[in-house]
Amino acid sequence: MNLLVVGSVALDSVETPYGMVDNALGGSAVYFSVSASYFTDVGVVAVIGLDFPEDHLNFLKSKRIDLRGLKRESGLTFHWKGRYSGDLNEAETIDTKLNVFEDFRPYIPEEYRESSFVFLANIDPELQLNVLEQVKRPKLTICDTMNFWIEGKLEQLKEIIKRVDILIINEGEVRQLSRETNLIKAYQKISSYGPKILVVKQGSYGALLFTPSSVFSAPAYPLEELSDPTGAGDCFAGGFVGYLAKSQDTTEDKLRKAVIYGSVMASFNVEDFSLGRLKTLTIDEIEKRFESFKKLTQF
Amino acid sequence: MNLLVVGSVALDSVETPYGMVDNALGGSAVYFSVSASYFTDVGVVAVIGLDFPEDHLNFLKSKRIDLRGLKRESGLTFHWKGRYSGDLNEAETIDTKLNVFEDFRPYIPEEYRESSFVFLANIDPELQLNVLEQVKRPKLTICDTMNFWIEGKLEQLKEIIKRVDILIINEGEVRQLSRETNLIKAYQKISSYGPKILVVKQGSYGALLFTPSSVFSAPAYPLEELSDPTGAGDCFAGGFVGYLAKSQDTTEDKLRKAVIYGSVMASFNVEDFSLGRLKTLTIDEIEKRFESFKKLTQF
Repeated sequence: MNLLVVGSVALDSVETPYGMVDNALGGSAVYFSVSASYFTDVGVVAVIGLDFPEDHLNFLKSKRIDLRGLKRESGLTFHWKGRYSGDLNEAETIDTKLNVFEDFRPYIPEEYRESSFVFLANIDPELQLNVLEQVKRPKLTICDTMNFWIEGKLEQLKEIIKRVDILIINEGEVRQLSRETNLIKAYQKISSYGPKILVVKQGSYGALLFTPSSVFSAPAYPLEELSDPTGAGDCFAGGFVGYLAKSQDTTEDKLRKAVIYGSVMASFNVEDFSLGRLKTLTIDEIEKRFESFKKLTQF
Repeated sequence: MNLLVVGSVALDSVETPYGMVDNALGGSAVYFSVSASYFTDVGVVAVIGLDFPEDHLNFLKSKRIDLRGLKRESGLTFHWKGRYSGDLNEAETIDTKLNVFEDFRPYIPEEYRESSFVFLANIDPELQLNVLEQVKRPKLTICDTMNFWIEGKLEQLKEIIKRVDILIINEGEVRQLSRETNLIKAYQKISSYGPKILVVKQGSYGALLFTPSSVFSAPAYPLEELSDPTGAGDCFAGGFVGYLAKSQDTTEDKLRKAVIYGSVMASFNVEDFSLGRLKTLTIDEIEKRFESFKKLTQF
């Protein structure tokens, strides 16, 4: 297995100014793995309930995603209900039902333990730590988190951050975690905790990549029609880590291209609800949009 | 005269988390003209009061700014008092004293009337219209405005917008003016009013340039130390229009470079209070930062 992701598989009910879906396929591990599947082999460790539709499993298999780490437990699948309004930059959670996710204890199958790249999606930092203890010397570990864990489990979170190579979080979380308003100072503080590479997701403003030697600024792709931002951050991470895992390389040049591939994947994902757009997306379309990012930024 | 600006000259009292100044040099025409003076000859049409210090006039003259259009009236100079907090993206106005600016009726001296480039800084749209009636066929007219006029003088504002080539306003104002959340749709609507080129200022997120053929995304320069964002938008406009006026050219390539020069000038200006940084800034520093913008965005 080249790339392992541990995270959530969910059924989402989402409302935006452009429509709504009920019990649609979602979850960080799903968005991440489908996005990364365009670049490399991915294996998923997550949990689903008895209600999880066979169709969704077939879709994931059609993307050649390895599901040997996906466990089905008796009970219902994790369910998130949320709403976006205005400029779609922030989700309002209406309801969260953890269901089988409540007792999720990630078990990494033997076949996954030598994965070269490991992405720890946004789950309890104690579980993230537990994953790192099961894998054997990955080349690169990447971690996401959210305000909930920064507020509730800061010590455990710092423990996991200390041990990963790259942290990918959004701008508000960077400030909250570092207690610095200025992003350069925030990077300096976070890199003193451990990870030398920080990716700051800025929603419709794009993303920033901080490394010890430079800062890289990537725009978001200007879209005329957006439907649903759910999963954009995980699709971004999937494109970013997927491209690095494909390249087997984390030089500055590759890291920058990875940020653009992440942005490309996120830009497609928001065009439709759930994983609708990624159902039909082709590699050719991805490469074309990568070129569009060049035109968007070149001067 | 190559470039004419009509706007305000002010004495500002500003407080930010990094310090404060009292009765410091400010005003849109000042920030704009000092910034543009690095690129081309600029003439200012504005008004000052009896209290306006000779030192400030000498500073403007030291930048070779033509002040034949600057009138001194009996009364006090326009005074703005404001405060910034948090991430410095928004100013809170504590007090505005229009003073001599209240009766400002721009008179364009004969020597200025054939200016090739005309920048209408953020003033009453009726005055902006009056300026356009006094100048003779400029090559390019560029206009700024603000929420106050969108709310209070929309019809007059649309009249001026109809007659300019480029509109430079911030993101919130773009949405307010167009009544569109999506920026591509907002551009389509605004370009249907008149100007085919729209520059959207996004504060610490950079700027977007919309033309009939493409979108260009420019980042803001990541700074570790920011002091005061006052005048950043006018310095941006000064670099943008100044570079175009120097180039005598508005091709796509030049427009993009102009946005970067605008961003460069804004990035220097926020490093100190009032025009502190622009007092010592050199052309060499400007060119170096322009190159840094290349490194910041290239992939």
